[in-house]
Amino acid sequence: MSKKLTTREEDYSKWYNELVVKADLAENSGVRGCMVIKPYGYAIWEKMQAELDRMFKETGHENAYFPIFIPKSYFSKEASHVDGFAKECAVVTHYRLKTDENGNVVVDETAKLEEELIVRPTSETIIWDTYRKWIESYRDLPILINQWANVVRWEMRTRLFLRTAEFLWQEGHTAHATKDEAVTESKLMQGVYADFAENFMAMPVIKGFKSESERFAGALETYTIEALMQDGKALQAGTSHFLGQNFAKAFDVKFTTKEGKREHVWATSWGVSTRLMGALVMTHSDDKGLVLPPKLAPIQVVIVPIHKTDEQLDAISQKVDELTAELRKKGISVKYDKRTTYKPGWKFAEYELKGVPLRIAMGPRDLENGTLEIARRDILDKKTISIDETVFYVEKILNEIQENLFNKAINYRDTHITEVNSFDEFKEVLETKGGFISAHWDGTSETEEQIKNLTKATIRCIPNNAEKEDGNCIFSGSKSERRVLFAKAY
Amino acid sequence: MSKKLTTREEDYSKWYNELVVKADLAENSGVRGCMVIKPYGYAIWEKMQAELDRMFKETGHENAYFPIFIPKSYFSKEASHVDGFAKECAVVTHYRLKTDENGNVVVDETAKLEEELIVRPTSETIIWDTYRKWIESYRDLPILINQWANVVRWEMRTRLFLRTAEFLWQEGHTAHATKDEAVTESKLMQGVYADFAENFMAMPVIKGFKSESERFAGALETYTIEALMQDGKALQAGTSHFLGQNFAKAFDVKFTTKEGKREHVWATSWGVSTRLMGALVMTHSDDKGLVLPPKLAPIQVVIVPIHKTDEQLDAISQKVDELTAELRKKGISVKYDKRTTYKPGWKFAEYELKGVPLRIAMGPRDLENGTLEIARRDILDKKTISIDETVFYVEKILNEIQENLFNKAINYRDTHITEVNSFDEFKEVLETKGGFISAHWDGTSETEEQIKNLTKATIRCIPNNAEKEDGNCIFSGSKSERRVLFAKAY
Repeated sequence: MSKKLTTREEDYSKWYNELVVKADLAENSGVRGCMVIKPYGYAIWEKMQAELDRMFKETGHENAYFPIFIPKSYFSKEASHVDGFAKECAVVTHYRLKTDENGNVVVDETAKLEEELIVRPTSETIIWDTYRKWIESYRDLPILINQWANVVRWEMRTRLFLRTAEFLWQEGHTAHATKDEAVTESKLMQGVYADFAENFMAMPVIKGFKSESERFAGALETYTIEALMQDGKALQAGTSHFLGQNFAKAFDVKFTTKEGKREHVWATSWGVSTRLMGALVMTHSDDKGLVLPPKLAPIQVVIVPIHKTDEQLDAISQKVDELTAELRKKGISVKYDKRTTYKPGWKFAEYELKGVPLRIAMGPRDLENGTLEIARRDILDKKTISIDETVFYVEKILNEIQENLFNKAINYRDTHITEVNSFDEFKEVLETKGGFISAHWDGTSETEEQIKNLTKATIRCIPNNAEKEDGNCIFSGSKSERRVLFAKAY
Repeated sequence: MSKKLTTREEDYSKWYNELVVKADLAENSGVRGCMVIKPYGYAIWEKMQAELDRMFKETGHENAYFPIFIPKSYFSKEASHVDGFAKECAVVTHYRLKTDENGNVVVDETAKLEEELIVRPTSETIIWDTYRKWIESYRDLPILINQWANVVRWEMRTRLFLRTAEFLWQEGHTAHATKDEAVTESKLMQGVYADFAENFMAMPVIKGFKSESERFAGALETYTIEALMQDGKALQAGTSHFLGQNFAKAFDVKFTTKEGKREHVWATSWGVSTRLMGALVMTHSDDKGLVLPPKLAPIQVVIVPIHKTDEQLDAISQKVDELTAELRKKGISVKYDKRTTYKPGWKFAEYELKGVPLRIAMGPRDLENGTLEIARRDILDKKTISIDETVFYVEKILNEIQENLFNKAINYRDTHITEVNSFDEFKEVLETKGGFISAHWDGTSETEEQIKNLTKATIRCIPNNAEKEDGNCIFSGSKSERRVLFAKAY
């Protein structure tokens, strides 16, 4: 397979699809809308999981596991939730197959379920049905639980990582004695997500909350982190919901307060998914392939020997083994690729495509001179350094790359937030420059919907730090107290 | 809820069910046959996962993820596999719900799938359908992949952890150029499982292979590790299958050899599941609750302060905080339970029930004397030691507990392998002593089935190290060349 990618300039969407497949991140499967996450892609996801899991535990959360199936009737219990979720989902109706007279495998019609089971699109209902049994008194609160799981939403148009029928995610579900505590929790988790996005993915995000029509089905408030991709489209990278007492009321979950009163429990839920893989790819990668931030790169340094003879390879390998051991002692993940079935040039292109942050090449002359060549993936810069200073240099440069990727992305993002004061301006910026558009909005769902129908732009969020500013809605002209961020989005 | 358990003597099965629930490991959900794994149970599973994952990676495997759904037609492709797996499974037939005229949520009959999807009971078919696209030449081999996933088998009679409709597991799926390499791989993974069972779970296992009728559907050989529970019943704890070229042929997966020939690929698959949680509970626990091997205990040491006044608690806490920091530096997980909502006696019973290996209690007099009380969960032994020697002592005793649990279990197991030479003897041992019965068998599935029908005992395995020994089948009297192990099993 050719490693040459369609360029972003030519066709951004095609570039993304090709890159995900060619860099061995994921591919489509024989099952409509479901992806196979390949080992290299999964290794990045594992790194994301490990950091997020650590952050969840540090903020007091524990993991647990709830059933993949949800009885159909559970969805009806929370009125707004059913509209948002019960629609496009996988429905299990039978529990047995049989072989018919022609030897074909067919559904056994006698094995029909009394009540259909839904493959979870999200787990609020099954979890709150469980919490009812766990919560009796204030002593049982808070419950701070997270689950790593697969979920299924029957999307009609799918794209690897960004929108798939099955995806992997984590979903936190917490239960609290007071409204304040639940609100604090949902904001805390928005902060954890922003911290992860910026410090590990090197992806700047805007923290804000959603307008009513973009809120999670069943939430009173949805906190979000919004990122900007290189094509000027926004991507919702994580959400944290304050659910009020909606699910506690739907599933009859009450607790006895210290004062002996019976009250409904307050809830939050929050999640990020394999969608982050798509965001990671689209934030940093270039026309040569992936560019990975060192903190999430499965291989941080790859070493390629340049040799003609077996003796040369042996001599290089001996030196490389020492170096590898030293680097690993520092916690740096190193791959030494001494396969002779592939040429160095092929390997260089391969690791460029896969976004390995640093590449080291060592040949016989380097060995004589006590040097090696080190190449940065982010800025495609090469230099020759002394072997002795490699460990120091690698550590330093990995940090620089992490920082550089973030700075580059935040510079792009910050130059793509445009304030507009009229709908004409709004449409022009949207069609030419793209990015976030900061505009006054009258606060109504009607205006929001009309703008969406006319331009495909939606309100991504009302930024947490939006300052009060008197103005007029760019669409209706009605009074507005602050600007909100619009964008076309994934 | 009372913490008092039914004793093993009274009713072993009831003891197990109560223990799993009362120790907060798992409970039944609102979905038939599906369990909720509670945080404490999940924390043990996470420890198992971490060790196994490390062992898989050390033996060269990578993780990946394949779709949860399998098109119905895939099952028909491997003839013996379909009989074993396509039967009792969850079938997805529709992809949408709707709200009917009465406001009820119902299946939208217009959204019927053309081909039904099966929720994976195991993933050989979908994975080999994928491997066809990945394998072209010998250079692409071996493929050494593992997946952590949930699977569903529609069991009619379920028991927490031991047999549930949905369970969590890992499934390794490897592809090789030669038969030898595939056989070596399947034996290697049997070894990894045995190592994990013995060195982490402290659960002795017998390594062997299955008789034809107990083999995995589609395998040429199934390697197994078999453990013995305290009630004398065996439990299959992990299996590793040599699949020959069956799946490669069914899914048309060929590779070009170094010599340029096209050949079918050789396969293995291997798995362990949350069933190991049941095995862990039943191997070590007693009438007071769980007994956990330190290497898998989420909390290795719990510290309980004994105090009357707040000043006493403060003084104790100050000392405990120092101690906790020192223990954590050694990688020991410590919980300090200074809740005042519960009395020390309640806490003691709680941590006994939860199987925390070591409990430390510290009161005002201890503080004066520079001592503390340390209690072992495994032998329920208490002693007073000097605070200064705590770290040394804790490390030493945790190792001793790990060793003691294994020795106790292997002693039980070894005294419950009985050689018999007649069917009368066989039946008597089975009904009285239980355990493994080592007996001659004529090698036929007919005999095996008759013995099973008459006694419920099955051939657990032909031990890897079974010595050649001439004898006569205890049932048919026909010639036999070696003894095999029978038992009633979970």
